[in-house]
Amino acid sequence: MANPTAAMLVIGDEILSGRTKDKNLGFLAERLTEAAIDLREVRIVDDNHKNIVMAVQALSKRWDHVFTSGGIGPTHDDITADAIAAAFAVGIDVRADARALLEHHTGKMGIELNDARLRMARIPDGAVLIDNPVSVAPGFSIENVHVMAGVPAVFQAMVGSVVPTLAGGQPLISRTLRIDLPEGVIAGPLGDIALKHADVAIGSYPFILNGNFGANIVSRCSDRAALDAAVADLMAAFPEAREQ
Amino acid sequence: MANPTAAMLVIGDEILSGRTKDKNLGFLAERLTEAAIDLREVRIVDDNHKNIVMAVQALSKRWDHVFTSGGIGPTHDDITADAIAAAFAVGIDVRADARALLEHHTGKMGIELNDARLRMARIPDGAVLIDNPVSVAPGFSIENVHVMAGVPAVFQAMVGSVVPTLAGGQPLISRTLRIDLPEGVIAGPLGDIALKHADVAIGSYPFILNGNFGANIVSRCSDRAALDAAVADLMAAFPEAREQ
Repeated sequence: MANPTAAMLVIGDEILSGRTKDKNLGFLAERLTEAAIDLREVRIVDDNHKNIVMAVQALSKRWDHVFTSGGIGPTHDDITADAIAAAFAVGIDVRADARALLEHHTGKMGIELNDARLRMARIPDGAVLIDNPVSVAPGFSIENVHVMAGVPAVFQAMVGSVVPTLAGGQPLISRTLRIDLPEGVIAGPLGDIALKHADVAIGSYPFILNGNFGANIVSRCSDRAALDAAVADLMAAFPEAREQ
Repeated sequence: MANPTAAMLVIGDEILSGRTKDKNLGFLAERLTEAAIDLREVRIVDDNHKNIVMAVQALSKRWDHVFTSGGIGPTHDDITADAIAAAFAVGIDVRADARALLEHHTGKMGIELNDARLRMARIPDGAVLIDNPVSVAPGFSIENVHVMAGVPAVFQAMVGSVVPTLAGGQPLISRTLRIDLPEGVIAGPLGDIALKHADVAIGSYPFILNGNFGANIVSRCSDRAALDAAVADLMAAFPEAREQ
């Protein structure tokens, strides 16, 4: 059976302007690979209600899971929760359980639960809260969409709360060979081997290091024997190959 | 008049598996911001013909420019050029001008122009070549889609060949204030100021530094006086603010 599939939706002007470099995609990608859930698509959209709604609807229809990051804080430009509610045509309001979490936290810290902070307790109807061990204000899951914060420490904690609860597939095993030859030399024999071992996903990822061309050849398969057979053929064809 | 808009399409399994961290988005985002072209959406898809075709068609209809990275090398998993031709329903074949570039280069280097290398001269009908000063094999532009390599050094060189040829808009000026207070404290006054200065785009980008919460408040506008007025109000409301 094929692995469950997933998409990620990154929400935030600051990524698109280049001001902030996204750190959440790489983290989520690694956790999903470990969980044998295949991340198949990523979209990054600006802080625009309509664009978020359209992306959530498209991705949630197409893939088994959607993970979003960003836009669930207390400021005026945090519009993700409302956009998610609109995407699923459900209501949204301050919810007692989310409010209780914030009340407990602000009480303990001796800070005010003002209107801005209370916005973080607005949860779409029917959603399930996602635990936030870093800064308390929760994320939430609705249908197959998991809505999380953009601040990396909080995003990572929420991923840790959600991903282990999802059913994974059969983990892929991978082996990587580095070959210090230009892809133009590698490509012919590599294509033949990829064709022969069609059950192994073989990718070529070129690099330039100190002006020299090379490529990492990554072979991936859930079956160890099939993987090893492909890698043996690669090593026979490319005596220069070094396993990474 | 509104600035031209753009999208980026990153093509490659290796980004989605987490094995490779994308470096091209941040680079392109900064160059487009300088050129006053608004990057509005990014998609990352796997090395799958149908997914590339669908994404190219959707993005090229919606935005003024589309920039792609990845999948134009010589190996079996480099399928971008064919997918672009399919997306625009045009033919694709080895083209004389692209072939001549590769012949000149391989001749000079004393290396063979084999079948694999010749794949890099396959150009969709009607496309215009994009100069590659790093490794010669060209990118291409067709309609409003600019197709470039994934290796960062080559991608960056191709961006340098293309972006200066595009008409830009009115550059945004930005000012950033760092405020070492939780967003829950900042949000109320900030929302009022954002409402008052509706012609200035004001975003709040929270961070956690050494366990303390803070936010960078970024104000952006093409009009210097309007920008400075908004920032003056922010500084009056938040005496803690430090300009970055």
